[in-house]
Amino acid sequence: MKKAVVLFSGGLDSTTVLAMAKSQGFEPFPLTVAYGQRHQVEIDAARKSAAALKVSEPKVVFVNLTSIGGSALTDDIEVPKDRDESAMTDIPPTYVPARNTILLSLALGYAEVLGADDIFCGVNAVDYSGYPDCRPEFIEAFERLANVATKRAVEGSTLTLHAPLLHMTKRQVIEAGLRLGVDYSLTHSCYDPDGEGRPCGHCDSCLIRQRAFAELGMQDPLARSPSI
Amino acid sequence: MKKAVVLFSGGLDSTTVLAMAKSQGFEPFPLTVAYGQRHQVEIDAARKSAAALKVSEPKVVFVNLTSIGGSALTDDIEVPKDRDESAMTDIPPTYVPARNTILLSLALGYAEVLGADDIFCGVNAVDYSGYPDCRPEFIEAFERLANVATKRAVEGSTLTLHAPLLHMTKRQVIEAGLRLGVDYSLTHSCYDPDGEGRPCGHCDSCLIRQRAFAELGMQDPLARSPSI
Repeated sequence: MKKAVVLFSGGLDSTTVLAMAKSQGFEPFPLTVAYGQRHQVEIDAARKSAAALKVSEPKVVFVNLTSIGGSALTDDIEVPKDRDESAMTDIPPTYVPARNTILLSLALGYAEVLGADDIFCGVNAVDYSGYPDCRPEFIEAFERLANVATKRAVEGSTLTLHAPLLHMTKRQVIEAGLRLGVDYSLTHSCYDPDGEGRPCGHCDSCLIRQRAFAELGMQDPLARSPSI
Repeated sequence: MKKAVVLFSGGLDSTTVLAMAKSQGFEPFPLTVAYGQRHQVEIDAARKSAAALKVSEPKVVFVNLTSIGGSALTDDIEVPKDRDESAMTDIPPTYVPARNTILLSLALGYAEVLGADDIFCGVNAVDYSGYPDCRPEFIEAFERLANVATKRAVEGSTLTLHAPLLHMTKRQVIEAGLRLGVDYSLTHSCYDPDGEGRPCGHCDSCLIRQRAFAELGMQDPLARSPSI
């Protein structure tokens, strides 16, 4: 089986991607980057979710992006709540400067150590809250960089960066994951969970997934109130 | 003054680049990435060297590349000693997978937080021990990526990645640094220093700088023995 590194936060998108990589015949190696998010409970959730999909335990890399700052996810900046979908076209304060570049560079290093030529990530250009590093041109530029950056590339291997969710709506992502048996009750997406890791139900990330489940006539298994 | 992030390990190359950025009229913000090198004494040395150049204290970001492994600089793999210059064209075990991609991605995040459009790095394609991420094509590909990766790029700013040492020999680097008043006794380059941070004098990195100083009719101020 071909090895593939899968960037895996344990969220809805990356859990779906992990299931996809496995279903495409890859041996997935999940990589969880702990970059100073406010709730370490997410790492435990990611471990459980990987176990449920019967793949290797996630490799965890710590990088203290809190020392760089500049984001509501790493600093004491307020996470926006109950925003209209129309307002989600702006780049919100939950944007982490150069986040996906940093995550993918770590994935590239891990891929080289494993001897893998495939990296999967859950980047999504549709329901993406306006992040610049979730656009097709970013994915293309990173793949191009990866193919000149490593010893493995110099020796003739070609790295492929898979972003299978790039053009999918959140609803389509969930449909794909359900077909592959993803248990979304084990995933987490919230930008501002409470101390026990329970989602706030009001940040962009919570709202986007709730709406997608609602479109499918389902309830988000993480919703705290039956009225959501 | 225009702000610039300078990737700064405290080594011979990056210390020279820090002095160059300052001499070119930038306000340099040194970024020191501690990625699991075996000697934390290097971080203290970097602080001293930045102070000597009268620039801001280095921002230190920790990332545990030891958990990814794959290099003599992060693992218990032996650092090659007393190699001939002819043997230095191979990519040695001191290569850290995707290292410069990771370092530059962190510099990109820091630049965005600071509102800087310039990043300096000490990448060198001449005396480079054969590292793939020290080649001009790598620098070009990263700059291209950076210009689609950030909020700042989306808003119209253009990031410039400066690699002023790219085509310089080590001797030329030292000459340039000496003209700018760099005190090379405060720098460190060794891949395998002892517990107190003293250079081994025999790894590629020690040998390359010793030879360059010798070409200039000088002694490396770090050399432990007058005979080197």
